[in-house]
Amino acid sequence: MSDLAALPVHELAPMLESGQVSPVEVTVAVLENMGRHDDTLKAYIDVYRDDALNEARKAESEISGGHYRGALHGVPLAIKDNIYFADRVTTMGSKIHGSFVSSTNATVVDRLSEAGAVFLGKLNMHEYALGGTTDNRYYGTCRNPWDLDKSPGGSSGGSAAALASNMATAALGSDTSGSIRIPAAFCGIVGLKPTYGRVSRFGCFPEAWTLDHVGPMTRSVKDAAVMLDAISGYDPRDPGSLNLPGTTTAGSLRTSLEGVTIGVVEDFYFSDVDDEIARSVRAGIESLRGLGAEVRTISIPGLKDAEYALTIIDTSETSTVHRANLRDRPQDYSDDVRLLLECGELPSAVDYLEAQQIRRHLRAEVQAAFAEVDVIAGPTLPIRTPTIGSETALLNGKEVDALENLIRLVGPASLLGLPTLSVPCGLVEGLPVGMQIIGPARGEQSVLDVGHLLESTEPLGSRRATAYLDR
Amino acid sequence: MSDLAALPVHELAPMLESGQVSPVEVTVAVLENMGRHDDTLKAYIDVYRDDALNEARKAESEISGGHYRGALHGVPLAIKDNIYFADRVTTMGSKIHGSFVSSTNATVVDRLSEAGAVFLGKLNMHEYALGGTTDNRYYGTCRNPWDLDKSPGGSSGGSAAALASNMATAALGSDTSGSIRIPAAFCGIVGLKPTYGRVSRFGCFPEAWTLDHVGPMTRSVKDAAVMLDAISGYDPRDPGSLNLPGTTTAGSLRTSLEGVTIGVVEDFYFSDVDDEIARSVRAGIESLRGLGAEVRTISIPGLKDAEYALTIIDTSETSTVHRANLRDRPQDYSDDVRLLLECGELPSAVDYLEAQQIRRHLRAEVQAAFAEVDVIAGPTLPIRTPTIGSETALLNGKEVDALENLIRLVGPASLLGLPTLSVPCGLVEGLPVGMQIIGPARGEQSVLDVGHLLESTEPLGSRRATAYLDR
Repeated sequence: MSDLAALPVHELAPMLESGQVSPVEVTVAVLENMGRHDDTLKAYIDVYRDDALNEARKAESEISGGHYRGALHGVPLAIKDNIYFADRVTTMGSKIHGSFVSSTNATVVDRLSEAGAVFLGKLNMHEYALGGTTDNRYYGTCRNPWDLDKSPGGSSGGSAAALASNMATAALGSDTSGSIRIPAAFCGIVGLKPTYGRVSRFGCFPEAWTLDHVGPMTRSVKDAAVMLDAISGYDPRDPGSLNLPGTTTAGSLRTSLEGVTIGVVEDFYFSDVDDEIARSVRAGIESLRGLGAEVRTISIPGLKDAEYALTIIDTSETSTVHRANLRDRPQDYSDDVRLLLECGELPSAVDYLEAQQIRRHLRAEVQAAFAEVDVIAGPTLPIRTPTIGSETALLNGKEVDALENLIRLVGPASLLGLPTLSVPCGLVEGLPVGMQIIGPARGEQSVLDVGHLLESTEPLGSRRATAYLDR
Repeated sequence: MSDLAALPVHELAPMLESGQVSPVEVTVAVLENMGRHDDTLKAYIDVYRDDALNEARKAESEISGGHYRGALHGVPLAIKDNIYFADRVTTMGSKIHGSFVSSTNATVVDRLSEAGAVFLGKLNMHEYALGGTTDNRYYGTCRNPWDLDKSPGGSSGGSAAALASNMATAALGSDTSGSIRIPAAFCGIVGLKPTYGRVSRFGCFPEAWTLDHVGPMTRSVKDAAVMLDAISGYDPRDPGSLNLPGTTTAGSLRTSLEGVTIGVVEDFYFSDVDDEIARSVRAGIESLRGLGAEVRTISIPGLKDAEYALTIIDTSETSTVHRANLRDRPQDYSDDVRLLLECGELPSAVDYLEAQQIRRHLRAEVQAAFAEVDVIAGPTLPIRTPTIGSETALLNGKEVDALENLIRLVGPASLLGLPTLSVPCGLVEGLPVGMQIIGPARGEQSVLDVGHLLESTEPLGSRRATAYLDR
């Protein structure tokens, strides 16, 4: 049964459609893996075991009755616990919202539900999606399936850990300053942060509303495309929603990179990066060249200012969301989260507005760069996977600040709302490395095309068992 | 000749079109008034005498050659000195920009130029459009033509004073927190703040970019419509520009108010208002009822929070614009302007973002109100016209803070970017009173309709000589 739990959506779907496999079998296989691993991994905050089995039975009867809805029909998936599932608790990984129940679904839940998905439950995350390598004080320490002492990354750590350990077939995460891509890279799975506004955030707890994104986390790039196609599209209930129809990327993935130009920004995405990680990602880029892509070095000087602007905007908006609770019940936040929220009260309005000006200037510069290249590729992270609870990580053997280096390379695409994929790209000391593929606004198809073809050349396949599971 | 200088655009235009009057005659008449009055009134910072006469001659020959361009062809008008006129100095009323020369026109200048207007020069204003009743330290004290000891209001005081003294046939002002409507009310002329984004601000010096508007100041409501139609419409060079075609309001003005509902918000627009001013504006509203309008009392509780939000947003954005100069050359600002800029550095980013949230909530509340009424009417100002240089003004005989009360009633429409007209509405102790007519977003036609019909009933006609000019 464990093979069924390890299949990516795009391989499972035809088996479900044909009746060769039942949604119940797949759901049971995934739940069995949860029973085996989740006491250790703590990827889940809440499991909807009975409801999931009921939904799987319903999907089974719909499919056998000839009512197949598409590639997510009967697929067991799970969602990060800052996404509202009606009449269930949504904790945001926090004590303060520990018994919060929404009466409505997030839009993304409604859309996955219409697609026939089976909901397994809610995935662990950093408290309010804040912080670096710290434990979750209230819902247990989520661990990296590749090495139990290592951080799975965050804040969507539960989503990535569940996928890497075959405890979900697909997942949703959220990404404000890297929270989909960081854990995707550390856990060897695929994470897609879509264009800002492409996927509705209605019913998702805000972190920083000009930066917040919801997106798929999966075991293959094609699965990310399937998920994006299901959840994207205009939603008037999200004021940031783009008034565009949903994407149709999964059926349009390229089979060659002829005519595609990949930009490499040496002096930013390969600057101050661990040598082994850089080597692994450069090898991936060479594979893309082998598939027909042109690779061009470009320069985007404004990228150096992105980290400052992102920090000011992110912390200021986050502290606005939490202002009342921080004043009224500061003891109910973890120490590190409270400190971040307090720091977010320090920037002045003028600082914030200058940061927005930096953002506008950088956007224009990056838009100009995308006139020359189709995507930009580089490492997702410059550091080795940090140990759980450590405030530092290794970069060429030196201990560097973890939090800053987690965000440094994923930050600019957050600030600019650009579609960005993290795809597995080799191993370093037995742990996965991620390649980040960044496209222009609304350019999800391009990043998925390049990621899909990288995956086809990549020895770290989506179904490769993790070190932990191999034991 | 002085009669020609006193005519509103809509009466002058047919005379110019038919050749009964030449643009040169009108321009000479206006320039003669300038010679008579402007040493006293200081409405102008810069006069383009020779160029204006050349433009007038060119218009004369175009019209006589059969190439009449429309209602502004050959009309002498002037612009506030924060609007760039290519290759001329634009001072913003400041020392720091005292010799600033733009190589390009503001979009509004280009559009008026295409309409055939004659540019008389640049109008006096508060330093960087900031402050209440204070003098301009660098370009002279602009005076109210109705009473030379009184403030003309600001910051577009020169525009209003020039119109009220027949030193321009039409003018442009700018309005961030009332700077078109306040001087329009105090000087007995018409001022229109259009919907945010309706008129391009490209080539206009920013005060607070989420609040800044450019708009017409005229001697009749129909003239304001003519000017709006000439300057409105999408401009990709202003990031806040609405992607809509220009308006066509002047030809569509109503002749009856049957079916029009006017909202009165007693507990805001008539709260803490000078009794005589309130009486005058209520009489105006009764006249509108006499013309067929329904008058309905409505409540918009959120209006009480507008002043706080406007103050935070306005000062924070303004101080962002001036941050470098305030640090590098603080002595080159007037004391009161420097103090305002320093205050604008105090709000935190969280304060600013909460103010934006207040703005969003109020917008929703006001949108709901506009489902019930077509426009909202009330006084433009709650106070009597302040004396030049005084920090207080009279309200029912009591001295109250001038700056706060100048902004109190005009502020909400600034914060929400709603089209708002100030129209003369009677006299109190021989000085003009303004009625403010506020419409929903993009509802310029409604506010102009109501203003136009109010004007038709109003004893203070646009051509009434001012007290100063009567002497």
